[in-house]
Amino acid sequence: MDLKERYKTLLDKINQYNSGEKGITRVAFTNEEQACTQAFMRMCMDAGMAVRMDQFGNVIARREGRKKLPPVLMGSHLDTVYQGGKYDGSVGVTAALEVVRRLNDKGIVTDHPIEIISFACEESSRFGVSTLGSKAMAGLFDKKKLRHLKDRNGITLEEAMALCALEIDAAEEASRRGEPIKAFIEMHIEQGPVLEKENKKIGIVTGIAAPVRYSIKIIGSPSHSGTTPMNMRKDALLGASEIALELEKTALKEQRYGTVATVGVLEVASGAMNVVPGEVEIKVDIRGTSIESRSRVVDHLHETIQLVKRKRGLEIIVQELSNEEPVLLSEEIIETTERICRKKNIPYKKMPSGAGHDAMNMMKLCPTGMIFVPSANGLSHHPDEFTELDDILIGIDVLEEIILHYASENSIIE
Amino acid sequence: MDLKERYKTLLDKINQYNSGEKGITRVAFTNEEQACTQAFMRMCMDAGMAVRMDQFGNVIARREGRKKLPPVLMGSHLDTVYQGGKYDGSVGVTAALEVVRRLNDKGIVTDHPIEIISFACEESSRFGVSTLGSKAMAGLFDKKKLRHLKDRNGITLEEAMALCALEIDAAEEASRRGEPIKAFIEMHIEQGPVLEKENKKIGIVTGIAAPVRYSIKIIGSPSHSGTTPMNMRKDALLGASEIALELEKTALKEQRYGTVATVGVLEVASGAMNVVPGEVEIKVDIRGTSIESRSRVVDHLHETIQLVKRKRGLEIIVQELSNEEPVLLSEEIIETTERICRKKNIPYKKMPSGAGHDAMNMMKLCPTGMIFVPSANGLSHHPDEFTELDDILIGIDVLEEIILHYASENSIIE
Repeated sequence: MDLKERYKTLLDKINQYNSGEKGITRVAFTNEEQACTQAFMRMCMDAGMAVRMDQFGNVIARREGRKKLPPVLMGSHLDTVYQGGKYDGSVGVTAALEVVRRLNDKGIVTDHPIEIISFACEESSRFGVSTLGSKAMAGLFDKKKLRHLKDRNGITLEEAMALCALEIDAAEEASRRGEPIKAFIEMHIEQGPVLEKENKKIGIVTGIAAPVRYSIKIIGSPSHSGTTPMNMRKDALLGASEIALELEKTALKEQRYGTVATVGVLEVASGAMNVVPGEVEIKVDIRGTSIESRSRVVDHLHETIQLVKRKRGLEIIVQELSNEEPVLLSEEIIETTERICRKKNIPYKKMPSGAGHDAMNMMKLCPTGMIFVPSANGLSHHPDEFTELDDILIGIDVLEEIILHYASENSIIE
Repeated sequence: MDLKERYKTLLDKINQYNSGEKGITRVAFTNEEQACTQAFMRMCMDAGMAVRMDQFGNVIARREGRKKLPPVLMGSHLDTVYQGGKYDGSVGVTAALEVVRRLNDKGIVTDHPIEIISFACEESSRFGVSTLGSKAMAGLFDKKKLRHLKDRNGITLEEAMALCALEIDAAEEASRRGEPIKAFIEMHIEQGPVLEKENKKIGIVTGIAAPVRYSIKIIGSPSHSGTTPMNMRKDALLGASEIALELEKTALKEQRYGTVATVGVLEVASGAMNVVPGEVEIKVDIRGTSIESRSRVVDHLHETIQLVKRKRGLEIIVQELSNEEPVLLSEEIIETTERICRKKNIPYKKMPSGAGHDAMNMMKLCPTGMIFVPSANGLSHHPDEFTELDDILIGIDVLEEIILHYASENSIIE
């Protein structure tokens, strides 16, 4: 069996675990996801690894090294969103196993141990909060705050974990804080259109953008759309429209820093054809890896709000929903990855990640790097999510090289 | 009892009929509305009138004149929206009865007979279509098209009428087509802020604006709000925002013609904070009494749509929901009303009506006029709807003069 065929079989096996009709639904802490995780653990054992599941449900499969040295970690997650695709998360986990199989084929024994991690509950779609498994591993899991999170059926995180025989009160024991870890590398699909558009095969992630999020309530006066002259209106929807367009204009100016801004939610209260909108709520998401650039967009948003408020005689109430710090990834790993791509003649691009990943939590534990493979049409979290098999194999080649580099005693990092 | 006290008692009596806790709920063909109508009929009989209900449920109360001449009609409606106010409709019906009471007090017998009309089912809030009673009276009721209209509980118009012992198949018999009618005058609250803002007491309605309505579907690409660079987006919400703001700009330019344009509904399909909106539907309502002015706004809307489509690479589907002709009211009645206001030194304003009224159907039967009294804060269809009693009494004075004018054999119209 050639490498491509072997990898395809592996990825297909993982995607047999699916409770949905459209796309892949393998939501965290459900039977499908747990069965998939079990199958993956058996496959790691078959590859000669020592496999365990930690107290939060993260899988840790270890291939011993020649020496007693800190392990080099790689992996991603096997859970999906509802009606997601076959690649998000799965590619990173299966690529890691493929790397180990290749080392086995070649009979390579590394200096450092190598570990594959399959993180539990990375997607936020079930409980509203993402990367729970890596939070637990990085000692960032706040069980008091998170245990009561509920899914769409009213099942709490605590109950869902209990059904998988995981006790949320033991979550802290999953923490690897203080344990020496040499590096963590995550391979993932880009989830955006840049690599495809620019014909690059590898994205070397420089940092992970964190969102600042606002809920903005715009209050005008509801009035009859037929009897209220244009100059006597206080139209909340037009105020919201001005804010949305000005936000786009500002973010476009910050294009070179990769900062993005989106109004993803707009709701008109009691919207009707014969009523001038009296109240509108918008939700704004602003992200960037450059704090300065993101701040310029945020500042301009607040200025715009003041302007629109005065000009249109509206009341505007701004509530900050979240404000996370961007995470910059290891410079050393970025440089090493660049070197590998150049050596292998693979077209690459250094780029920020606009989406959150387990890597951002792992950066609290050890030097962390991430590589992206292209997403067709930039689609993700969607049944049509797609990455060419050949592109995944290029990613695996690069991942293998990075792991070999750091698993060698001669490599130095931080 | 002075005139003000007498009128207040009458209006209060009508508003005892109410099934709601907030504001007035006296919806067409419900027990509350029928009981109210019955009470009103008895009051008309007490005023010496011959009272009947036609086959659609319209009340016709007649005060005979000195001669066999076409009658002069006045009135409005007693039904309300859900959680409406005390004035919309009721003011016009009660004012008409007050006019008759005054004539009785003064022992005046007019040349022409005078009729009070209380139209059935004026509000669209129960069955989605407005002014049904006046449609029937004007021979415009299409029973094939309208009998299956349903209310929010699934009760059809046919069933609701049957519960009131009205047979929808007899609706055509309510038509007064071909019968000579001298004039119809409707007094109503403005439902807008203009009279109050400009300190006028009477609005003389020049015409009734009819809406052109569109549903516009804007289709872009849903994509991840973190990973899609600003210049690679096809954001449907931003397209919708541009259309809404440009529509406002165009309508503002048509201010002097009284044309208005509103986006009252905007819905983002699967809106989420981390998704660039891929599909948005807006609903647009454009009204004016000047066909030319309204057409300029409509034309510019279509140009804007083309522009936004090209500029943003969006797909935009436009569906016309309705396109009604504005109705111009009788020039002769407008002039007579102006003369009366000037004589009585009452500050007035000639103005279009942005909302629809029974008067627009009655214009198909006979010369029709309308006067407005001020609405506090322009509010209507709302529990806080309010008109000063003194302002209503000024309206009644003017209505009385108009009716006396046209009920005289010497008055000429058309």
